[in-house]
Amino acid sequence: MTYCVGLLLDEGMVLLSDTRTNAGMDNIATFRKTYIFEEPGERVIAILTAGSLSVSQTTIARLEEAIEEPEDGNSIMEADTMLDVATIIGNTLVDVATDIKDKMERMKQTATASLIVAGQRKGGAMRLFMIYPEGNFIEATPDTPYLQIGEHKYGKPILDRVITKETNMKDAAKAALLSMDSTMRSNLSVGMPLDLTFLAKDECRVTEYQRIEAGDAHFAAMSHEWSEALRKAFVEIN
Amino acid sequence: MTYCVGLLLDEGMVLLSDTRTNAGMDNIATFRKTYIFEEPGERVIAILTAGSLSVSQTTIARLEEAIEEPEDGNSIMEADTMLDVATIIGNTLVDVATDIKDKMERMKQTATASLIVAGQRKGGAMRLFMIYPEGNFIEATPDTPYLQIGEHKYGKPILDRVITKETNMKDAAKAALLSMDSTMRSNLSVGMPLDLTFLAKDECRVTEYQRIEAGDAHFAAMSHEWSEALRKAFVEIN
Repeated sequence: MTYCVGLLLDEGMVLLSDTRTNAGMDNIATFRKTYIFEEPGERVIAILTAGSLSVSQTTIARLEEAIEEPEDGNSIMEADTMLDVATIIGNTLVDVATDIKDKMERMKQTATASLIVAGQRKGGAMRLFMIYPEGNFIEATPDTPYLQIGEHKYGKPILDRVITKETNMKDAAKAALLSMDSTMRSNLSVGMPLDLTFLAKDECRVTEYQRIEAGDAHFAAMSHEWSEALRKAFVEIN
Repeated sequence: MTYCVGLLLDEGMVLLSDTRTNAGMDNIATFRKTYIFEEPGERVIAILTAGSLSVSQTTIARLEEAIEEPEDGNSIMEADTMLDVATIIGNTLVDVATDIKDKMERMKQTATASLIVAGQRKGGAMRLFMIYPEGNFIEATPDTPYLQIGEHKYGKPILDRVITKETNMKDAAKAALLSMDSTMRSNLSVGMPLDLTFLAKDECRVTEYQRIEAGDAHFAAMSHEWSEALRKAFVEIN
């Protein structure tokens, strides 16, 4: 399982993903689920992945190939708009899923993935998309400034309560981390380390990136303080 | 959709259910999902239902019939133990689901229900079960003193953080209501009014029951205070 969240704010975009993958509870591994495509100052695209690792890794590999040897306008680094970028990624995703579908069906299994795509090109607006396993997508709006993939429910209440598009990047990162904390407490298959990425508005590059390791003192303190604050709040209300 | 939660505490059991049912978003109705079977002082059994209303209502109807005209030890009011009660209810549930399965499959639909069963008979222990659509069940233990059915994820973090078997009934009801509040905020198909039932230990009867209507002043105040406390806690931690 996975939990990834992307936030589209006036100041920029904040992206958070976990790294745990598992094939059964006895086969757990760490894989980065945040992929960055960047020509600093010109264009930045971040892709967060949930679902079948084979599907998402193959999708990323094909996107990389198409950047190196672009044909028929299929390079996300050359696409005219972020909408075109999302379309290329959605089409690639569904192509990969279709290619392996027959094999999977023979084993009575399915393999699908969903993606969050965040990006901006010079002169364009920041845009944040969620791409469904079928390749279609939705976009974050000022009314709903965040998108989630994977195990999204445990961590949604905190986001619903505190995130608006006016939230600053630091608070948004705090909310995303607390949202991740709630998710990790309730679903063992979501786990550390975490990848936290900031794309400040109009910079068209990764303005900050943190890998938060298991045992990170700041994250542990935040998690503990939040637990204490919740328990205290719980006791105080009637 | 539905959200129901049952808590097994040293002092007794607390049960909370919503009442919203829907067949598509334009066909929403209110149905009680908490059913009580009671011979005060001798035996109390509470059943909370989630899933297909046709399955759960038919299951309850058959359980009632069996109480009125018991055959072959199938009355939950005469069963020797709460384990036997859970077994009878599980078998009835799966019988109903099987009876309508063929009809549903013709329409390419499924209809299933899950249940929470809480009860105590004079001289026995309080017991709390969750019955799966297949009729098998699990039981709450001191380590996991609560069980949920329906839309359970949004409301789980608060329970994980504050509920232990030592929690008193009043605090447990508060936690259950806040858990319901988080769920209703995130899923429109879970809604007021709510049914809150208390079964104090060894009383073998419903010791308190409240129907909490939409607009209930106390619930609204609690919900508001909780929101404020969360926002305040969020601002204060680093």
